[in-house]
Amino acid sequence: MRQATHRLSLQTRGKGLTEFTSPVLAWVDAQGMDTGLLTLWCAHTSASLAVTENASPEVLEDIAEAFERLVPEDRGQPGGQRYIHALEGPDDMPSHIRTLLTGPQLTIPLIEGQVALGTWQGLFLFEHRTRPHRRQVVLHLIGE
Amino acid sequence: MRQATHRLSLQTRGKGLTEFTSPVLAWVDAQGMDTGLLTLWCAHTSASLAVTENASPEVLEDIAEAFERLVPEDRGQPGGQRYIHALEGPDDMPSHIRTLLTGPQLTIPLIEGQVALGTWQGLFLFEHRTRPHRRQVVLHLIGE
Amino acid sequence: MRQATHRLSLQTRGKGLTEFTSPVLAWVDAQGMDTGLLTLWCAHTSASLAVTENASPEVLEDIAEAFERLVPEDRGQPGGQRYIHALEGPDDMPSHIRTLLTGPQLTIPLIEGQVALGTWQGLFLFEHRTRPHRRQVVLHLIGE
Repeated sequence: MRQATHRLSLQTRGKGLTEFTSPVLAWVDAQGMDTGLLTLWCAHTSASLAVTENASPEVLEDIAEAFERLVPEDRGQPGGQRYIHALEGPDDMPSHIRTLLTGPQLTIPLIEGQVALGTWQGLFLFEHRTRPHRRQVVLHLIGE
Repeated sequence: MRQATHRLSLQTRGKGLTEFTSPVLAWVDAQGMDTGLLTLWCAHTSASLAVTENASPEVLEDIAEAFERLVPEDRGQPGGQRYIHALEGPDDMPSHIRTLLTGPQLTIPLIEGQVALGTWQGLFLFEHRTRPHRRQVVLHLIGE
Repeated sequence: MRQATHRLSLQTRGKGLTEFTSPVLAWVDAQGMDTGLLTLWCAHTSASLAVTENASPEVLEDIAEAFERLVPEDRGQPGGQRYIHALEGPDDMPSHIRTLLTGPQLTIPLIEGQVALGTWQGLFLFEHRTRPHRRQVVLHLIGE
């Protein structure tokens, strides 16, 4: 049994989902393990990890839009959200709350040399800040 | 230290929560480990995993209903959700978004031969599509 | 490769987020591992785990308030939530649903002796019941 670790640095373009399945699978392949457990950790409080359909850009747009409705920015609208903490702008608190709802971590089994993603499952970084950011995702693999 | 893997195939009856604690615990028991880490992975983008109270069917009904309100289907209602992607019907996008909110994965410690579920915690597959589906959940256990 | 386990008992003050990063990191340090995988499991269906900003108490207030809006208590308000299951009061069902939305588990890589938390990431227990509770969080570490 052995372990391997890696740090991925991903550039986002502001709010929305960026797929990064390929670099993750490439790194796992390079470790040459047959059976194991892959963990991804997003080291931020305003960006998160998501698994969703990797086939249609429309799905990604609809998801981003749904999160705007689910956890609205505070823009002074009647009946709108009210946040005490808005130091970094109206996207500050919503980005923390959306991160909580989707989560910083994924752990996926590796079986017969393949990460157990389903046919339509892609790995995405979900940026919740309006402006582009560089984000760090830590990878950990244990197995043999 | 060793690993074991398994694929569970679960039939759902359409939208709602199906408990599958028993087959998971039975498989873990059969591996004869004392200490370890159990991971469950749901290989879909329109069904997810959930841990909730295993005692009352009413709790399951209330959860399903709450998700209908939280991420509504697009039925053309005024002020309702609007999805670009609706290829497979009004439950298509809501099922992806509800999957994101609950997640595809659980990792649970095994201590003294017991999975560390609390007294009231059951393992559930959360089907988000209206029609019944057959779903695959991958199990991975590492320990000794 | 070896494993260690521990049970943390945490007292909450009712609804809200309680940070417990310090006792977790102290326990991990005491295991003397360099590389590994840390798993936290919250053994309840009305309290959950969350990772969020550890710098501002306002962020914690805003998060708690956002969950009140996202999954409201049933107080008979027009257009409000309606729950079948309310045995233990109006906070009963919302606490189960909020637990589902945030989740019972976190798994974090350990690299060069450090848990891979980002600069601003703290570990929090998210109590969803109105009254204070004593909560159990199981820790599991595998590595070397």
